[in-house]
Amino acid sequence: MKTLKNCRPMGGPATDLHIADGVFVETSPDGAETIDCGGRILIPGLVEAHTHLDKSLLGMPWYRNEVGPRLIDKITNEREVKVSLGLDPQVQSERQAILSVSHGTTQIRSHVDVDTHHGLAGIEGVMETRDKLKDIVDIEIVAFPQSSMMPRPGTVEMMDQALALGADIVGGIDPCGIERDPKGHLDAVFMLAEKHGKPVDIHLHERDALGGFSMEEIIARTRAHGMQGKVTISHAFCLGMMDRAYVADLQAQLAENRIHIITTAPASAPVPAVKELKAAGILTGSGSDGIRDTWGPYGNADMLERAMFIGQRNNLRRDDEVELALDICTYGGAAIMETEGYGLRIGDRADAVLVEGETLAEAVALRAPRKMVLKAGAVTARDGACVVAAP
Amino acid sequence: MKTLKNCRPMGGPATDLHIADGVFVETSPDGAETIDCGGRILIPGLVEAHTHLDKSLLGMPWYRNEVGPRLIDKITNEREVKVSLGLDPQVQSERQAILSVSHGTTQIRSHVDVDTHHGLAGIEGVMETRDKLKDIVDIEIVAFPQSSMMPRPGTVEMMDQALALGADIVGGIDPCGIERDPKGHLDAVFMLAEKHGKPVDIHLHERDALGGFSMEEIIARTRAHGMQGKVTISHAFCLGMMDRAYVADLQAQLAENRIHIITTAPASAPVPAVKELKAAGILTGSGSDGIRDTWGPYGNADMLERAMFIGQRNNLRRDDEVELALDICTYGGAAIMETEGYGLRIGDRADAVLVEGETLAEAVALRAPRKMVLKAGAVTARDGACVVAAP
Repeated sequence: MKTLKNCRPMGGPATDLHIADGVFVETSPDGAETIDCGGRILIPGLVEAHTHLDKSLLGMPWYRNEVGPRLIDKITNEREVKVSLGLDPQVQSERQAILSVSHGTTQIRSHVDVDTHHGLAGIEGVMETRDKLKDIVDIEIVAFPQSSMMPRPGTVEMMDQALALGADIVGGIDPCGIERDPKGHLDAVFMLAEKHGKPVDIHLHERDALGGFSMEEIIARTRAHGMQGKVTISHAFCLGMMDRAYVADLQAQLAENRIHIITTAPASAPVPAVKELKAAGILTGSGSDGIRDTWGPYGNADMLERAMFIGQRNNLRRDDEVELALDICTYGGAAIMETEGYGLRIGDRADAVLVEGETLAEAVALRAPRKMVLKAGAVTARDGACVVAAP
Repeated sequence: MKTLKNCRPMGGPATDLHIADGVFVETSPDGAETIDCGGRILIPGLVEAHTHLDKSLLGMPWYRNEVGPRLIDKITNEREVKVSLGLDPQVQSERQAILSVSHGTTQIRSHVDVDTHHGLAGIEGVMETRDKLKDIVDIEIVAFPQSSMMPRPGTVEMMDQALALGADIVGGIDPCGIERDPKGHLDAVFMLAEKHGKPVDIHLHERDALGGFSMEEIIARTRAHGMQGKVTISHAFCLGMMDRAYVADLQAQLAENRIHIITTAPASAPVPAVKELKAAGILTGSGSDGIRDTWGPYGNADMLERAMFIGQRNNLRRDDEVELALDICTYGGAAIMETEGYGLRIGDRADAVLVEGETLAEAVALRAPRKMVLKAGAVTARDGACVVAAP
């Protein structure tokens, strides 16, 4: 039981908020601990809706990256290097999840590699972390066929096992570019979703007309399987293509089928235009993608920084625009993850972050260490440090 | 006199470096103070080669940005809002320069507005800051006709006065897009450069063929005035255009005329490809551009973060590629500014930064608070804080 004294929900007027049994309540319960928020802004927990907890090299010696330029170079290199580096998915996912919490993240959707080389080691490792950290962060697991399904016999069966074991979501990857068999790949993804009654989240890096074609096929299967509201497309670089009339048509179909978009707003690739997605009524979330892994050196799991990246990539400068970027990293991701009781209303779960700054836009621009992070009313981080030590 | 014990110049093997009379020397002078660098990497001072010290709103109440989307909206709004906000160019430039030093910057090239509305107030203010902070940072001033020269009679004369007063460089801006008179504008810029014997640094936001046209005109005048090595083009978005054959031709001409490029690597605009610039032999520097001003909320004056942005925008992932991004933020900018004695060799001026990380690429990815910053051998910042307090 806590009273958050003198906080400013979403940058509004200062007020006191009360917490009991992990949720926001109307009045201060007897014996509540009072926390002076010093007039700081309170936002709901940041949502890391697209990352790869099993891949990070955090806490390991520096990995000198000499990998080739193509997507397939990175995939092949990683599959092999994981072994030589002795990467432990449990330890690595714990390290990254704790870093996320230190920056104010309260829930994570992680894609986790499933392939015939490493089997279910990634899934098992991240499941162990999910259980270990359940009091400080919620982790949702996507069974992700990073190395492809169709060209590598046995992967579909392994995906099936991952979902039976406890993965929450069926992943997929470039049906043409990586799988070289869009019909086979997408039929398998939706078959697995139907069999296990689980949602879908597909990586789609394909650009221009190729990505548009694969997106049309995803839309067609969403409709055919009655999976409206249960399908997410991550990256969706094709929505950044030049042919804006075609993009508008695709976006109308995505909205109609309640297909969600997750964008990490990379600076070097075409990206979905977040203001257009909002105007079209498409739920949009964001994530860090890989953090300091064999793919690249960047990333720090800070979703306020990610909101800044979304702002910079989409040329969002006005305060209301920067607030949209933050909304994507909070409410947008939470809606895609179908999080119950997300927000700062009475009855909502007390997952929240005290941030520095006079306004929400300043909080994003500053990205100062988070003063305090709460998960179901319990303090999980203070002054940028998680209460749990990383392994 | 100092000995930097156990430091790793540019991430190489640990060694001791000695400083006397502000420069690196062979052997430890008698009575030298020993500083234990703890095996950290030492790099030369970071170079902020493109910013606007007179515009920042740092330390002022949050400015709610509701400005329109066009370049001219931002220019017009700023010219007027500067008055209503009571922005003091001296105070603001001092605040931003001190923030720069805290992050390891030892030299700054700042464009400073010159217009008929504010006259030389910006130039005078930044000159005062330049003098006040001369022991901790070198500031180079570009007289910058932000509001245009040709459509606003009296501006050319004011630019002339600014250069006579002490501005170091002649600035310019979109000869077509803003000036609407490429011949008139560029003739005036090069006339001023010739009259005052000073270099040129032109903002060129124009895209595609329009920017290419203006660039051709800049190249023609560089050749005609024999100003090879004295002309810089900032932004140069047109070099990010689709027509790579035309860009290759432009880049060959830039190299031939030793015209330099400064890129801030914005995520939302086309950008010069830094690896191509390097291959063409074009000196390349970088900068923060505006920091928390009426144009937008972002920016923190951290040139290690800027190196990361260059890396993200140019898809630089391999270690050698990330090192190129850092090179642009150090040696590249220093070469453009014709800095004498820049570097870590014996005889070089002891402008240097101790950074965290196992490798240079990790230093860029981490962007941890700088352990120590030196200007001519004197400590100017420790643990991310400048030794001089901001006003």
